[in-house]
Amino acid sequence: MSARAGIVVTGTEVLTGRISDRNGPWLSDRLLELGIELAHITITGDRPEDMEAQLRFMAEQGVDLVITSGGLGPTADDMTVEVVARFAGRPLVLDEALEQRIADILRGLMQRFRHWDFDAVRAANRKQALVPEGAHVINPVGTAPGVVVPGKPTVVVLPGPPRELQGMWEEAVSTPAFQEATAGRTDYEQDTLLLFGLPESGMAETLRVAEREIDGFDRLEITTCLRRGEVEVVTRREPGEGEAAYASLVELIRSRHPRELFSEDGSRVDDQVAALLAGRRIATAESCTAGLMAARLTERPGSSGYVAGGVVAYGNEAKSGLLGVGPALIERHGAVSPEVAEAMALGALERFGADTAVAITGIAGPGGGSKEKPVGTVSFCVSTTDRGSLARDILLPGGRADVRERSTTVAMHLLRRLLRGEEEGIL
Amino acid sequence: MSARAGIVVTGTEVLTGRISDRNGPWLSDRLLELGIELAHITITGDRPEDMEAQLRFMAEQGVDLVITSGGLGPTADDMTVEVVARFAGRPLVLDEALEQRIADILRGLMQRFRHWDFDAVRAANRKQALVPEGAHVINPVGTAPGVVVPGKPTVVVLPGPPRELQGMWEEAVSTPAFQEATAGRTDYEQDTLLLFGLPESGMAETLRVAEREIDGFDRLEITTCLRRGEVEVVTRREPGEGEAAYASLVELIRSRHPRELFSEDGSRVDDQVAALLAGRRIATAESCTAGLMAARLTERPGSSGYVAGGVVAYGNEAKSGLLGVGPALIERHGAVSPEVAEAMALGALERFGADTAVAITGIAGPGGGSKEKPVGTVSFCVSTTDRGSLARDILLPGGRADVRERSTTVAMHLLRRLLRGEEEGIL
Repeated sequence: MSARAGIVVTGTEVLTGRISDRNGPWLSDRLLELGIELAHITITGDRPEDMEAQLRFMAEQGVDLVITSGGLGPTADDMTVEVVARFAGRPLVLDEALEQRIADILRGLMQRFRHWDFDAVRAANRKQALVPEGAHVINPVGTAPGVVVPGKPTVVVLPGPPRELQGMWEEAVSTPAFQEATAGRTDYEQDTLLLFGLPESGMAETLRVAEREIDGFDRLEITTCLRRGEVEVVTRREPGEGEAAYASLVELIRSRHPRELFSEDGSRVDDQVAALLAGRRIATAESCTAGLMAARLTERPGSSGYVAGGVVAYGNEAKSGLLGVGPALIERHGAVSPEVAEAMALGALERFGADTAVAITGIAGPGGGSKEKPVGTVSFCVSTTDRGSLARDILLPGGRADVRERSTTVAMHLLRRLLRGEEEGIL
Repeated sequence: MSARAGIVVTGTEVLTGRISDRNGPWLSDRLLELGIELAHITITGDRPEDMEAQLRFMAEQGVDLVITSGGLGPTADDMTVEVVARFAGRPLVLDEALEQRIADILRGLMQRFRHWDFDAVRAANRKQALVPEGAHVINPVGTAPGVVVPGKPTVVVLPGPPRELQGMWEEAVSTPAFQEATAGRTDYEQDTLLLFGLPESGMAETLRVAEREIDGFDRLEITTCLRRGEVEVVTRREPGEGEAAYASLVELIRSRHPRELFSEDGSRVDDQVAALLAGRRIATAESCTAGLMAARLTERPGSSGYVAGGVVAYGNEAKSGLLGVGPALIERHGAVSPEVAEAMALGALERFGADTAVAITGIAGPGGGSKEKPVGTVSFCVSTTDRGSLARDILLPGGRADVRERSTTVAMHLLRRLLRGEEEGIL
């Protein structure tokens, strides 16, 4: 049976929703990779008694490892180390070498902030050098060190800023206490299928068929989730176990959803489009998404190899002036129309000397809708100099942010289909 | 003493980090507005025993109200209603009127999906019409109804998709069971201060001074958090109590951080810039942020009133071709330089016939850095036709995504300063 872990996220700013937690999800992935089963994530404010209650809950649930994030800062409301020390029954001791290391880091940092008093800042950070007796100190990436506190459960204490937590993770994993706590873990096989253009109910029905028809289906732990218009099917199983069952499941899904299934290896549409764009030059022409598509295409390092640029043509003057869309065309068909989308795409091809262009024009709302073109109506056109074009008009659900974000996903799938030479398929 | 609540977020896709939870933060804000104290948020997978353990934990912590999100879908791994019914000791009963309502909703939805079998989908959704005896049904916004289950604690069961959960919240709050569970709650006063360009340690030091100098400081519940380069100081207190202490705190922060304090009413820099742009026309010229700035400026409905558009000039050809930046200038100073940023801003003013422009060019990494211009080096220029320009070169911390995102925040603050006529101030 594999090691189980819990994550305790601290911080009133997280609990009260002023910042949303990015550490729980990231840590979940790391634990999964290590074959450690994540049982619970809990989020607490800066009240010591609430945090202790959560640590006790984790211990009662019998987890082998607890990872905490946050509450290591210099302010008085940062008290994770203190609470964990009490929970583990270990006194706090000052680590002088660590205090010196923090001071050195601060001296460097302070250069970025003028009119700041080094001693004041250093004093504020002194408490960060107090560690539970017998704990392993993890070197800070920012100014806050982490600790690994041996015990049952072993507690790994990491800072809240994702960049710091992520940078300190490897060292935490390598500590003897972490390794002992998670000994005897089993590595799971996990595979991810992705489908686009399918209602989650459709997948539910297919899984019911699979349950009836596939031997050893019960060895598969399947979760489905609908995200950004894509259905994600993740299957976990123990190595060796249920390989045949999984193969049959993939076969069944292929046969029932040939057009919707776009990834059998968990690769995102973004990964696939990036690969398809190698050696090409793409330009964007965006109205309602106003730069989100260009930003999404450039999320990856190296995207400068194939992204030429784009125009955010928010107003009609910009559509005409920068993309050469005829005012008469806009007048006749409206700014949200396949005709204008196509003209925007052609304009982008031409202005950027690109061989591939994607144009998006739509009504993100809340205003601007009409009976013929309600809020959520979006026209897309993907054009190439060598593979023709593909256009779609789609009605997207949700509010302004949903429509804008979902539009980039639809555009990604249109790009994928056209560049793969699959012009058909539902979208 | 005020009512306390807990939130149980369900779903293996959330626990395992494949989607990050947006409901916990949103619900936290709603509870705060209602004066209900949020004690714990817990996240569980689709294992019934883990969800039950969390519900018991909430009960043991004595919360009056538990809100669950997720696990109401049609797939077999969606079992929240079943688990909550067992926890509350209420049998599940089929609500036929509800089943009919769901069927009607589905019939409408199915129009969006061709080659789909209505009966199969309806069957998949039938389980969504099973509700705990005596529970109040909340009408679905999507296809999944919610329930409010009276008891100690009272459990509010809502669907996972944020749009659905948010659309059903008001009805849940209005139920007698919700109102009884949260009776006798106290409304808190809460105020938010925002500062930019200050290390969190600087605020820690200021708060230590406040603790020494301000009478009744202990009546203030203060949390600080560093987000997107801004320090947020949130102060809660009971009405009447500690008003004077809070006024002194604001005075102290004003006097110690006159340049960094930019919001005393919690308004975001985005809100302030939107107001300052009224009656103006802004255009963007982006390289490393590749559309994120334009997208951020257009997040608000009505932004088409002042946003003309923008150019994503990712390659140098685009900088020259679309923004008229001289190749010689790029050659001489490099694409990431104040000179090129200024030329990009002027090009944007001219091409869009705008009176305000913001240009961003930088090295987001991971590659492209040098000794003189390391990764994170970003040049900004904000230009107007009537108030001059403001330029900055800044070294931003973090990875590619951090640098891109943080750059939009710096640009927002430069815009704010210039449009308010404060050209000075650290950034």
